[in-house]
Amino acid sequence: GQTPVFPRILGHEAGGIVESVGEGVTELVPGDHVLPVFTGECKECAHCMSEESNLCDLLRINVDRGVMIGDGQSRFTIDGKPIFHFVGTSTFSEYTVIHVGCLAKIDPEAPLDKVCLLSCGISTGLGATLNVAKPKKGMTVAIFGLGAVGLAAMEGARMSGGSRIIGVDLNPAKHEQAKKFGCTDFVNPKDHTKPVQEVIVEMTDGGVDRAVECTGNADAMISAFECVHDGWGVAVLVGVAHKEAVFKTHPMNFLNERTLRGTFFGNYKPRTDLPGVVDMYMRKELELDKFITHSVPFSQINTAFDLMLKGEGLRCVIRMDE
Amino acid sequence: GQTPVFPRILGHEAGGIVESVGEGVTELVPGDHVLPVFTGECKECAHCMSEESNLCDLLRINVDRGVMIGDGQSRFTIDGKPIFHFVGTSTFSEYTVIHVGCLAKIDPEAPLDKVCLLSCGISTGLGATLNVAKPKKGMTVAIFGLGAVGLAAMEGARMSGGSRIIGVDLNPAKHEQAKKFGCTDFVNPKDHTKPVQEVIVEMTDGGVDRAVECTGNADAMISAFECVHDGWGVAVLVGVAHKEAVFKTHPMNFLNERTLRGTFFGNYKPRTDLPGVVDMYMRKELELDKFITHSVPFSQINTAFDLMLKGEGLRCVIRMDE
Repeated sequence: GQTPVFPRILGHEAGGIVESVGEGVTELVPGDHVLPVFTGECKECAHCMSEESNLCDLLRINVDRGVMIGDGQSRFTIDGKPIFHFVGTSTFSEYTVIHVGCLAKIDPEAPLDKVCLLSCGISTGLGATLNVAKPKKGMTVAIFGLGAVGLAAMEGARMSGGSRIIGVDLNPAKHEQAKKFGCTDFVNPKDHTKPVQEVIVEMTDGGVDRAVECTGNADAMISAFECVHDGWGVAVLVGVAHKEAVFKTHPMNFLNERTLRGTFFGNYKPRTDLPGVVDMYMRKELELDKFITHSVPFSQINTAFDLMLKGEGLRCVIRMDE
Repeated sequence: GQTPVFPRILGHEAGGIVESVGEGVTELVPGDHVLPVFTGECKECAHCMSEESNLCDLLRINVDRGVMIGDGQSRFTIDGKPIFHFVGTSTFSEYTVIHVGCLAKIDPEAPLDKVCLLSCGISTGLGATLNVAKPKKGMTVAIFGLGAVGLAAMEGARMSGGSRIIGVDLNPAKHEQAKKFGCTDFVNPKDHTKPVQEVIVEMTDGGVDRAVECTGNADAMISAFECVHDGWGVAVLVGVAHKEAVFKTHPMNFLNERTLRGTFFGNYKPRTDLPGVVDMYMRKELELDKFITHSVPFSQINTAFDLMLKGEGLRCVIRMDE
């Protein structure tokens, strides 16, 4: 964000159990199992009323806000001085205070140390495919960027019955890991002299049916759009580009009946939709365990950060109760 | 096209009656009423088999081809020398020869001097709204460019029950005419110092629900995209841009859940869908007569061209039987 807000309690991808509720909260009771979400759902604004949007006017992500919506105060102190919140979640803590609009009540049977992954990145990629790209069974799908979000998008393609699932990444080491997520073909743009969209168009006799971009790189966004088939191809942008980035293409690429869409948090409304995603995991349609490459107690959180920053794993579960 | 093919018989927006059929043609018989279409539908290729595409592999528009698909010969001669075809239709003629895949069989009760308009421009604009932008009742819709195609897109917005239908054109004279097509608000970009997309976003408290661009100008395409509401807005490109044109926008405009699509011939499959469009006219849901500003006998076709090139009318019906 523009305005660093410190000191604050970070952390946003998590699962937990309601300890107590504030005045006026009727949707949750102590003991409920919940996923805190960095973006909320007030259920009253135009976005929440829309069938399509999850960009809640009241509780939309705001990295610069360090306080509760409503009274504008922090709920944390240390030695009497306020500590600020982070994206409404502040989950690197055994106890936190979260707006009811940012909590999805889920199946209490669901293991929190697994479904916690659904409170951010995995839902973002999964929903980009299932809710926005919407491949039909037998379609070809290209996924650009094979980090955890991209692999979650690929998991969506696997669940949808994609016939060919093409992973695109600059790091050849990503290929082996991607196979667990349904990857049938791997393309490294560095292995080719021509633009990767041309490589994919040739591989697929005219282009893929769907493409999902999970890199944040504008060139990858252009490639993802230009590699979809004319007539029906849909490309979906997930990655957050830097401020000066520009998406560019020739208008004829649209005229030939291609569609380009973007998505935020996989178009999931946190409270309305996440319980159903947890249920997909419980029915074993959605596989989550393969995203968890590490697990450490809270005392080793810095080790976890180092591991993830080195790109040595997909997700490290931080065990808050140890 | 790149390769001028002359002499040739021009003409493509028309209606007619089958005089005779060639060997192997089973779908049509003499006496059938038909709309010839500059792009066809073989019903066998991947595009024709797709529910979404109308970009038939076999019969897709080709302005450089002056002969029949199949034997590659012309069907016209003068003084023994071949005259070439134009986009498979060559309708500036009392008799022509057309591939069965480029003929839509329509209700014989439909007046050919009205529904002929559906064989190109009116369907292009109408379908862009009805088939691609798909506004729901009560939505706000902006139409960029108020020529006949743009007004047909506006007619689609009127038929869909648009609550506010905003016409955008550089020519203030277009406002009055557009009212017949449902225009509730008119914006001339020349009247504003800020970009027209910002004007529309302010007018509509965040953007229109749908926008349809019918200009061919890349800046208008960008404005049409950037004026739709985040969360659910859909913009549709119809105009054909010049070869060097570039569509540019910040990727965040997509990430905030906007959709951009392009369309060709309103996504109508000529043979499958046009009969239903004629039926919409017969049921008086679709109004066509208001597009016809002039009507002249074939002998005055050059007068018709002059009128249309001056922008003094929307459509001039050329009466071939006089």
